[in-house]
Amino acid sequence: MSAAKRNRMRLIEDRLQQIACSPCADGTINPIRKLVDQLPIRPNPDKSFLKLSIGDPSVFGNFEPPAEVKNAVRDVLSGSCQGYEPAHGMIVAREAIARYYTTPASPLTFEDVYITSGCSDALRIAMDCIGTPTKHIILPKPGFSLYQTIAGNRGIPTKFYNLIPEKNWEIDLVELESLIDENTAAILVTNPSNPCGSAFSVKHQLEILSIAEKYGVPIIADEIYQGMVFEGESHSFGELSKNVPVLSAGGLAKRWLVPGWRVGWLVVHDRHQRLSAVRGGLVKLCQVIIGANTLIQAAIPRILSDTPPEFYSSTLSRLKNAADIVYAELKGVPQLKAFMPQGAMYMMVQIKVDQLADIEDDMKFVETLITEESVFPLPAGIFGIPNFVRLVLTVPEDILREACRRMAQFCDRHKRKH
Amino acid sequence: MSAAKRNRMRLIEDRLQQIACSPCADGTINPIRKLVDQLPIRPNPDKSFLKLSIGDPSVFGNFEPPAEVKNAVRDVLSGSCQGYEPAHGMIVAREAIARYYTTPASPLTFEDVYITSGCSDALRIAMDCIGTPTKHIILPKPGFSLYQTIAGNRGIPTKFYNLIPEKNWEIDLVELESLIDENTAAILVTNPSNPCGSAFSVKHQLEILSIAEKYGVPIIADEIYQGMVFEGESHSFGELSKNVPVLSAGGLAKRWLVPGWRVGWLVVHDRHQRLSAVRGGLVKLCQVIIGANTLIQAAIPRILSDTPPEFYSSTLSRLKNAADIVYAELKGVPQLKAFMPQGAMYMMVQIKVDQLADIEDDMKFVETLITEESVFPLPAGIFGIPNFVRLVLTVPEDILREACRRMAQFCDRHKRKH
Ligand SMILES: Cc1ncc(COP(=O)(O)O)c(C=O)c1O
Ligand SMILES: Cc1ncc(COP(=O)(O)O)c(C=O)c1O
Repeated sequence: MSAAKRNRMRLIEDRLQQIACSPCADGTINPIRKLVDQLPIRPNPDKSFLKLSIGDPSVFGNFEPPAEVKNAVRDVLSGSCQGYEPAHGMIVAREAIARYYTTPASPLTFEDVYITSGCSDALRIAMDCIGTPTKHIILPKPGFSLYQTIAGNRGIPTKFYNLIPEKNWEIDLVELESLIDENTAAILVTNPSNPCGSAFSVKHQLEILSIAEKYGVPIIADEIYQGMVFEGESHSFGELSKNVPVLSAGGLAKRWLVPGWRVGWLVVHDRHQRLSAVRGGLVKLCQVIIGANTLIQAAIPRILSDTPPEFYSSTLSRLKNAADIVYAELKGVPQLKAFMPQGAMYMMVQIKVDQLADIEDDMKFVETLITEESVFPLPAGIFGIPNFVRLVLTVPEDILREACRRMAQFCDRHKRKH
Repeated sequence: MSAAKRNRMRLIEDRLQQIACSPCADGTINPIRKLVDQLPIRPNPDKSFLKLSIGDPSVFGNFEPPAEVKNAVRDVLSGSCQGYEPAHGMIVAREAIARYYTTPASPLTFEDVYITSGCSDALRIAMDCIGTPTKHIILPKPGFSLYQTIAGNRGIPTKFYNLIPEKNWEIDLVELESLIDENTAAILVTNPSNPCGSAFSVKHQLEILSIAEKYGVPIIADEIYQGMVFEGESHSFGELSKNVPVLSAGGLAKRWLVPGWRVGWLVVHDRHQRLSAVRGGLVKLCQVIIGANTLIQAAIPRILSDTPPEFYSSTLSRLKNAADIVYAELKGVPQLKAFMPQGAMYMMVQIKVDQLADIEDDMKFVETLITEESVFPLPAGIFGIPNFVRLVLTVPEDILREACRRMAQFCDRHKRKH
């Protein structure tokens, strides 16, 4: 029997077997999903289930987008806006975004803006365009888990720098510098941060930029929470950078409270034209799925210009208020240590496992807390840091208070007796 | 100097150099874009520019979505639908799509449906989930160029089977079979076809399925034009398949005339549970960009149920009418041969270059036609077949007639004198 014939025969025998899934799909790990699949979620049936786990501001109905945002989309819908647009975005929308982020130090044009299907897609395109199987990207720890999902999907190696909780989650700069070598494709920073709720000082941003500059490494800045800081100003890495090329990812999801609409963008800051090849690559990568929904894209100019300043400030003061409540409620709980956020919509709480009798880690803490108290914060192990939980601050005040009280009771019940 | 130090020094010297673009981005080739970039488009200033090149039904304003489609979205917008939904789609939308495609022979549930950011994204996810750098996918020639873009992006090897123009663009089955080996990940079919405008008979579909079955190879069916056939019924490969796993890609773009809304889907037909691993992979791949716009997703149940049957039939009869016009107009042109389409929204026209004096191929034909007559059909070389052009049938009647007349005059002027 010829080799070809033998192969055919084998094919026929195999034909009812399972079809294999590609290594690319297998490698696309989503740590949050993995956790949720593993975690036995059996809330106490006698207590209302309080979910502080989902980073979706729209869940409780208390954080709605401003009327101007929906009106802008409604008006587009009445017109005719359902055709294909350039894969990397409608020019009017790209112009509006360029205007929105332009500062005297960093003038932008529409050509610096690439519209994507959510900020997730912007991050994917940025990482795919710069990372390769031999050139790694350096990620924050704790950090938003999507970065690892994207790296796993594409086979891009990763390294991690630590954020220091006691220093408002600043980057350990000595460690960051030690991780850079000739195969470093990019440093990824998240500011303000999910999961930490931190916002870097300008001084710290400049320190990070100076390390990137020293080694000629570009920065991918996940700035989806830009502008969402409780005090002082919020500056993008792109604006502050003089010599470091910055790919800044953003979108409508968080600041305008419409995560389901799936419109994000990548803004390229590149004073020395070092990203010419990368820009070409970004366009090509956008062409694979032909970009974001055009109804929303066409509404972007009005969304950015018409949203009243009070909307932003009221969102922020309500988030700050929520953080104050949690902080005050948990202050007296010896087994927990809350870290006050400076922005975004999250708060990290440390679990002092050595002061708890039968709780060995964040996973066990959350599992037991759900079973006994029907309270569900996210174990921050999935973000890469042990023995923290992440609380979402877009939850209504009364639920937050109740959740904190239950956590306090829980800790008291489980405290280690000396 | 230590090696580490030397590397650092080199890094510093390199720091003002260009940042490289990844092989993944470099390999993401879009043949249409490449063409448009190369083609010198200088229409004759004395003649109106007639573009028959873009497969976007919305360009001329004569193919608008039905009112029901926009009303459904308007109603969703008035409610509250801006939160995150499962990455592979809202359950109500997936249920509606499952219902829409269910036949007695192929019952579907929402679990068989994965919603994606356009049909392009559905194709990307299907190809990424089954193809690997060592397992190829077999593509149609001529074929929609996105398949190659996706394969190039992911490094999936490809092979090509020919479609036979004289047999209504049926597949050369002997050739198809000869291409299959133990490294074949999938056969991709497009039906009805872009660029050919062909629609397979059920007999031919069954022949294709029986080859796939013989070798146990799954089919990726690009069925974005399903239902868009001028005569007789339109059956999906999934419906007709008994033993072959079929991943069917579809979406709102063409049948409901809203390509810019970027909502598509993948429907899995798998009678023998051979795709369990693949289904897991599809979900993971959807999680990277977290799916499609939720306003449109939430409107899908009503879009599918409320669109009146007359809308579909009127679209089809207008497309058929356009095909008849072009066919009649070009019939008397000895240098051209039009192939009557059976569906979709395109028509292929062969250029008999041996009967033209100074036109050596489709590229030159189109270039000269633009310069002299301001008429722009797409050279079908980009779809993999030489000396054809593709005409789009969603163009208004008067423009179509005028374009055909100018093509006829052009051919007469350039005809080879014997
Ligand atoms: C830090 C960070 N980046 C990106 C995203 C994703 O944003 P989008 O919904 O626009 O894809 C999120 C969402 O939670 C986030 O927290
Ligand atoms: C055969 C075929 N498949 C897929 C697509 C892409 O569809 P979508 O716009 O939904 O991504 C097209 C668009 O022209 C097409 O012709």
